[in-house]
Amino acid sequence: MNERQCKVTVPLLTPLSGDGNIDYRGFGKLVAHCVQGGVSGFLILGTNGEGYLHAGNVRLDVIRHSEDFLSGFQGMRLYGVLEHSTDEAVAFIKRAMDLGAEKFAIVPPFYDAVTQGDIVRHYEKIAGVTRARMFIYNLPSLTGVNIEIETVKKLKRLPGVLGIKNSSGDMFYFMQLLSRVKSEDFPVFQGSEELALPSILLGADGIIPCGANVFPAFFVWLARMAGSVSTGDYDEIIRLSGKILDLQNMTSYWIASLKGACESLGLIGRDVSSPYTGMSDGEIPRCRTFTLQLEKEIEEAMKSKR
Amino acid sequence: MNERQCKVTVPLLTPLSGDGNIDYRGFGKLVAHCVQGGVSGFLILGTNGEGYLHAGNVRLDVIRHSEDFLSGFQGMRLYGVLEHSTDEAVAFIKRAMDLGAEKFAIVPPFYDAVTQGDIVRHYEKIAGVTRARMFIYNLPSLTGVNIEIETVKKLKRLPGVLGIKNSSGDMFYFMQLLSRVKSEDFPVFQGSEELALPSILLGADGIIPCGANVFPAFFVWLARMAGSVSTGDYDEIIRLSGKILDLQNMTSYWIASLKGACESLGLIGRDVSSPYTGMSDGEIPRCRTFTLQLEKEIEEAMKSKR
Amino acid sequence: MNERQCKVTVPLLTPLSGDGNIDYRGFGKLVAHCVQGGVSGFLILGTNGEGYLHAGNVRLDVIRHSEDFLSGFQGMRLYGVLEHSTDEAVAFIKRAMDLGAEKFAIVPPFYDAVTQGDIVRHYEKIAGVTRARMFIYNLPSLTGVNIEIETVKKLKRLPGVLGIKNSSGDMFYFMQLLSRVKSEDFPVFQGSEELALPSILLGADGIIPCGANVFPAFFVWLARMAGSVSTGDYDEIIRLSGKILDLQNMTSYWIASLKGACESLGLIGRDVSSPYTGMSDGEIPRCRTFTLQLEKEIEEAMKSKR
Amino acid sequence: MNERQCKVTVPLLTPLSGDGNIDYRGFGKLVAHCVQGGVSGFLILGTNGEGYLHAGNVRLDVIRHSEDFLSGFQGMRLYGVLEHSTDEAVAFIKRAMDLGAEKFAIVPPFYDAVTQGDIVRHYEKIAGVTRARMFIYNLPSLTGVNIEIETVKKLKRLPGVLGIKNSSGDMFYFMQLLSRVKSEDFPVFQGSEELALPSILLGADGIIPCGANVFPAFFVWLARMAGSVSTGDYDEIIRLSGKILDLQNMTSYWIASLKGACESLGLIGRDVSSPYTGMSDGEIPRCRTFTLQLEKEIEEAMKSKR
Repeated sequence: MNERQCKVTVPLLTPLSGDGNIDYRGFGKLVAHCVQGGVSGFLILGTNGEGYLHAGNVRLDVIRHSEDFLSGFQGMRLYGVLEHSTDEAVAFIKRAMDLGAEKFAIVPPFYDAVTQGDIVRHYEKIAGVTRARMFIYNLPSLTGVNIEIETVKKLKRLPGVLGIKNSSGDMFYFMQLLSRVKSEDFPVFQGSEELALPSILLGADGIIPCGANVFPAFFVWLARMAGSVSTGDYDEIIRLSGKILDLQNMTSYWIASLKGACESLGLIGRDVSSPYTGMSDGEIPRCRTFTLQLEKEIEEAMKSKR
Repeated sequence: MNERQCKVTVPLLTPLSGDGNIDYRGFGKLVAHCVQGGVSGFLILGTNGEGYLHAGNVRLDVIRHSEDFLSGFQGMRLYGVLEHSTDEAVAFIKRAMDLGAEKFAIVPPFYDAVTQGDIVRHYEKIAGVTRARMFIYNLPSLTGVNIEIETVKKLKRLPGVLGIKNSSGDMFYFMQLLSRVKSEDFPVFQGSEELALPSILLGADGIIPCGANVFPAFFVWLARMAGSVSTGDYDEIIRLSGKILDLQNMTSYWIASLKGACESLGLIGRDVSSPYTGMSDGEIPRCRTFTLQLEKEIEEAMKSKR
Repeated sequence: MNERQCKVTVPLLTPLSGDGNIDYRGFGKLVAHCVQGGVSGFLILGTNGEGYLHAGNVRLDVIRHSEDFLSGFQGMRLYGVLEHSTDEAVAFIKRAMDLGAEKFAIVPPFYDAVTQGDIVRHYEKIAGVTRARMFIYNLPSLTGVNIEIETVKKLKRLPGVLGIKNSSGDMFYFMQLLSRVKSEDFPVFQGSEELALPSILLGADGIIPCGANVFPAFFVWLARMAGSVSTGDYDEIIRLSGKILDLQNMTSYWIASLKGACESLGLIGRDVSSPYTGMSDGEIPRCRTFTLQLEKEIEEAMKSKR
Repeated sequence: MNERQCKVTVPLLTPLSGDGNIDYRGFGKLVAHCVQGGVSGFLILGTNGEGYLHAGNVRLDVIRHSEDFLSGFQGMRLYGVLEHSTDEAVAFIKRAMDLGAEKFAIVPPFYDAVTQGDIVRHYEKIAGVTRARMFIYNLPSLTGVNIEIETVKKLKRLPGVLGIKNSSGDMFYFMQLLSRVKSEDFPVFQGSEELALPSILLGADGIIPCGANVFPAFFVWLARMAGSVSTGDYDEIIRLSGKILDLQNMTSYWIASLKGACESLGLIGRDVSSPYTGMSDGEIPRCRTFTLQLEKEIEEAMKSKR
């Protein structure tokens, strides 16, 4: 395997203070934790950032602060755009660009009966009106529609389109992206954390794993290890990856679990946006024990192999 | 069967002018057409009203005009609230109430991993903060979550809750609503047009059929006929209902079909919101022929029976 | 409503003795219970009869005994044919006809990638080779394929085809069967128990409810009541129907629940075919209490209304 | 990567003569083609062998011939057992063992409401009664039930259980099998052809790809190449794998496509079991051109790399 660089982008959590407002102090701490872990980029206000749960003005405020916090960061800053409709996406992107945002990860319009033609028109209109730079964000579990490979090929030719993040959980679809669409100027990112390892092995340009909020260095190490030449023993990596996924299932809502783990590491608080509820006091001790134990196991594994 | 009154509410289409703005002249015409047909209420900015496709300020503008147009109308005016999150729903409802809106049909928060507890908290918070009067709007095909019968029972006890509109397409679920939740002060509405007839027969308090935009008088007649005592021959009603549904499948997007039919009757234009596309010039003649023929068949059927 | 006759067919349970063999004494008792309840027919070795779980020779033995037990019964005797493939269906039907069986309820071939054309060929070949008289048995939850309305129209024209039993749970599909396919010589039966009432109201020729094994007289009464002219209060019927369905959910396997209920009434034992397991000793008392209480409620309801 | 051996098992097609009988001359030719290609085993009468479409006596006849044809073959001979019920599986296996069959790939019982406990009881009973050696065959698209990881762990401990073939198409599930269940004496096979490459990379003990009927040498080469140390360029392999999958989509029924391709190579005829239909005369020329062109591309690729 060649020394291809697979990049780790963090789908950043959005920390909240007890009163439901954004906790920008925690925000800065979490960003610093990830930068220190060696990540190459951030996806802000994506699904993990609860972007769809905050009112528009709050999201714009997050963008303003992010541009500020990350002004010295060399890597990519992507902002999630999870609107129902083309018009709302255009309106939001325009306002975000006024605040300095440049790159966006944009889902298709989502609702009944969206055709592949509707998807193309969606991105065409956004490209034409906003001149934003954008990642296609395939997320059928949410939008109800999968972007077909032939459609991705068409979208690739639109001005401003930078690449694709696929979060469909479909390994074969991702392989088709790699062999039939990927190119030098069209990177392909794996958004389904559980498929990170095989995706890297097959040539993904990047991964965007939720767990990177908690253990950024692990995923950076995984991306480098898996892509390196001389190893074939993935059992430990799969085992640890599996435990990071187990961590996310500690409560029914994965963001509550991730925030609980982050709190365990002293990074941010565990509040989540309404109407969801954060981890209860009763759940926290088990989460803390699990997280700290896992942190130790990860450090040992990283030490033992390179 | 007793002379129970089953009410017809129109899930109103939102007419557009060629430039993508709301066509308020068409709006008035469509409203008048429905009032003349004898309908008992309007659901504005629901799924058929493309409520999820218009930016927030446009929707508020529609509400302002609706309150104006319908100021003399005795029946119910419901406004659709199709927001992802509790916070956005609260924000929108507050602004709508400032414009005079009183009653809303509100979907659950929609996204991954919504629990029945989240649904209760969603309506509780909206009730507490806005004091709006609201219909529960069960729409799992969109929101990804079904509101369980036991949850409906809990929601029924919240202040301001007026009833439920079910659009899940599940007949048995609807029967459970009728026998286990329905009461004098908690009417149950059928939102799935294809189930209108059996729902009326079993005691639905109302139906909210898309096709009522085109043929309001038919549904008013259906609601009265079906609920009346002495008839058992539903073949003609099922046949005509089926044709109205066929009409909605003339293109892949049902709203484009409905607007095409409305244009055929000289009511409103056929434009739909981006990124969807309206009926093409090539499709219109067949749609017009079909619509006018169906109009004639409906009139004859209504004449022959009562 | 006219005095249309809606017929009740029992999808008969197959009683087992403790050693896994058929309990023909129980079989006779259950049949007598149903005949006494006034049912019009039996579907033997259907899904409720665990037809798919018994080896071929056992099923043929059941047919031999059934023809014997029911020799004096005037109503319909239908035998379920739940084979994967056309060839196996043909082979089984031939052997069954040698034993005197005449009418069958036959599912489509089931496996991947079955087209509507394959379905037609399946019934055509069976009709051609066996000259059996057959009901089309639409059961997509098992076979993985729905028989489209246009396909049913084609099948209706095949020699030997007697009618259709639909168990798809789709009310609208059933309405299309009623208005677009049903005729004097092609009766349409509702196989989804939970939709029995609205189906009768709209003109179903028959219902085939699992619960009729336990409470045959209730369903005969329901079919007559619902189709009669002068009543509009279905709340009690829906309530009791719901409790019969609740009864079937007492364990995870509905047949185990039904057999538990039958045991409670002293009809047959509660053993089910391998690898399923019957109700445990611990579950039986609750089941018995529930069943006996329900029996009483049903009797009272039937007494109070005609 | 270490020089782990990933084995290729062919899920053998069952050739038919024009009259619907088994074509044993073609059978021998196809087997020889695969042996020459270097495969390590055969799965006979699996889904690709249309095992579920042949009557029991025909399947037993296939087993008799297979044991004969493959008497000198060193590799594994697995026979598919695709029965609805435990009893039918036991009956079939006993008769097959009388004919010399030793190893079986056995699906769970399939029907409604199968629990994980039912699955364990199914294999337990088969193990106890038949003493067969068996592969667990996870095939939820057919059986309607997925065998959970914890259940696989339990099944692994049963006497006679040899390993698992997973055909669920779920990459993450397969990774869990690899890291949490796989052991020296419990090999894990990938049955979903489209996931062959990443599965080999992560340590699958074997692959069972449909396409190996047509191009056995390609998959043997793929298994060796992918597992070897020094290459990282999978684009050509993914491209060719994709074309083999395209080949299988030339008609709606993948077995008809595979048989058409085999006919193009002069191996076996294109007839398929009733009620399916084989490729039409009109489809054959395109299939032949595609197959021969692909054969050439594969040979060139194999020549260029090792």
